Amino acid sequence: MGRITSRHKVLRIDLDRGSTSRVETVAVEEPLEIRIDDEVLTVTMRTPGHDIELAHGLLLAEGIISTREDVLVARYCVDTTEMNVLQLQLRTAPGVPATAQRRLISHGGCGLCGKTSIDAITESPVYDAAALTGADVRVPAGRIAQLPELLRAGQDVFDRTGGVHAAGLFGASGDALVIREDIGRHNAVDKITGWALLQGRRTAECVAMVSSRASFEIVQKVAMAGIPVLACVSAPSSLAIEAADRLGVTLVAYTRGHRMTVCSHPDRVVLP
Amino acid sequence: MGRITSRHKVLRIDLDRGSTSRVETVAVEEPLEIRIDDEVLTVTMRTPGHDIELAHGLLLAEGIISTREDVLVARYCVDTTEMNVLQLQLRTAPGVPATAQRRLISHGGCGLCGKTSIDAITESPVYDAAALTGADVRVPAGRIAQLPELLRAGQDVFDRTGGVHAAGLFGASGDALVIREDIGRHNAVDKITGWALLQGRRTAECVAMVSSRASFEIVQKVAMAGIPVLACVSAPSSLAIEAADRLGVTLVAYTRGHRMTVCSHPDRVVLP
Repeated sequence: MGRITSRHKVLRIDLDRGSTSRVETVAVEEPLEIRIDDEVLTVTMRTPGHDIELAHGLLLAEGIISTREDVLVARYCVDTTEMNVLQLQLRTAPGVPATAQRRLISHGGCGLCGKTSIDAITESPVYDAAALTGADVRVPAGRIAQLPELLRAGQDVFDRTGGVHAAGLFGASGDALVIREDIGRHNAVDKITGWALLQGRRTAECVAMVSSRASFEIVQKVAMAGIPVLACVSAPSSLAIEAADRLGVTLVAYTRGHRMTVCSHPDRVVLP
Repeated sequence: MGRITSRHKVLRIDLDRGSTSRVETVAVEEPLEIRIDDEVLTVTMRTPGHDIELAHGLLLAEGIISTREDVLVARYCVDTTEMNVLQLQLRTAPGVPATAQRRLISHGGCGLCGKTSIDAITESPVYDAAALTGADVRVPAGRIAQLPELLRAGQDVFDRTGGVHAAGLFGASGDALVIREDIGRHNAVDKITGWALLQGRRTAECVAMVSSRASFEIVQKVAMAGIPVLACVSAPSSLAIEAADRLGVTLVAYTRGHRMTVCSHPDRVVLP
């Protein structure tokens, strides 16, 4: 799956104690090119590993696929030695679908305003409004408070580098289903939603947790995957809150210690 | 320039003290569509404000312009009420330049490996290898150690929301030339490099500082702007180090308190 950490010679300076040469372990960043047949869909800078999941999650978020059966073949391009080009074959017509050709949803609806970006999601046939807004999962606040620690416990690469984000998918009872790390928080989310799609896992009772802030793009990915609750460690953006509100996602921000802030659809959080 | 913070009704939960409804201030995230003539170059999710600088910085980083004279006109599109569409007219032929049509540099050279992404920068006529690798600025380590605090002091939006990144451009003597905030760290960097371009500011003796980690894209933007020293608060990625090394940028990571880690071209850092 490629290297996920690499070692580099650095100079560590301490103003009080002087400087020393040492070898530092950092998270690997490499481009991943995703092709549909022979056409390039996108290139994302990611930490290698779980690339097939990443591609499935990304295509799901962009409304290009809705089930794992939509992808007939997913394999690394054999004419390169690096495992950085992934070639997919879809059940639909060959090449990048016309809807995705002009622009990926995550790059904005039409650039006019945030509302049009949210509209682009609601108009996608993959987004299931009824299922998401109607998901009647209830999660105790105390359980949400435990998620950052559970996420952190699953972060191998972070322990070694401190340089990656994590995303986790948890069952309603707080059990960790999958935890993925990546230098890009959006990639980490694609890896967990792609995992759920490939596993055929029902997401209507799941909680997603990210180690970072919540932006529009993160809410988009969670909503397209049909996950009703998203918790994040840090601050939300205005558009993340507006999107979560419109799309039926419970957004919990600033999840730290015994505190959290519910920014949308608070009915799913059971108060202590 | 549009709103940079907005207020949202939220539910704050404290497992020990109960829950309270309150109004939370968060950073605004809105799409910015950048058009060259009538053709869409890209859409980026950003915090409104300093959009003209952002567009100049982005075009510089992508090798589309190299001086402020390359942009004849930059104005908001008047046929929308939102100030989220920026229309540029370049000195070159109308429309998006052919080199940028297929893919922005920041989306990877050809997806084969990180090396090709770095090659794409070195092959751009905007990247001035001789000027950057030859920049003989020397910065005392003690001065670099002060930058995070200076950057933090200039962060208005962060104080109110905790949800934005910052980038700053500093003179070799540590004086803050410009500090910009944005929900996207890449946008914050575009805003400072765009500012320098618009001001006609010589960058060969400057230090850039970001409040985040350092990825390939951040190093790309700093290198294309001719800034020889980049400091960041958190971890670097493997490709950020490799790019800084190849492109002639001194990359200083983990800049915290009295400590820092010099990952490339350490000669520019004067030891205590």
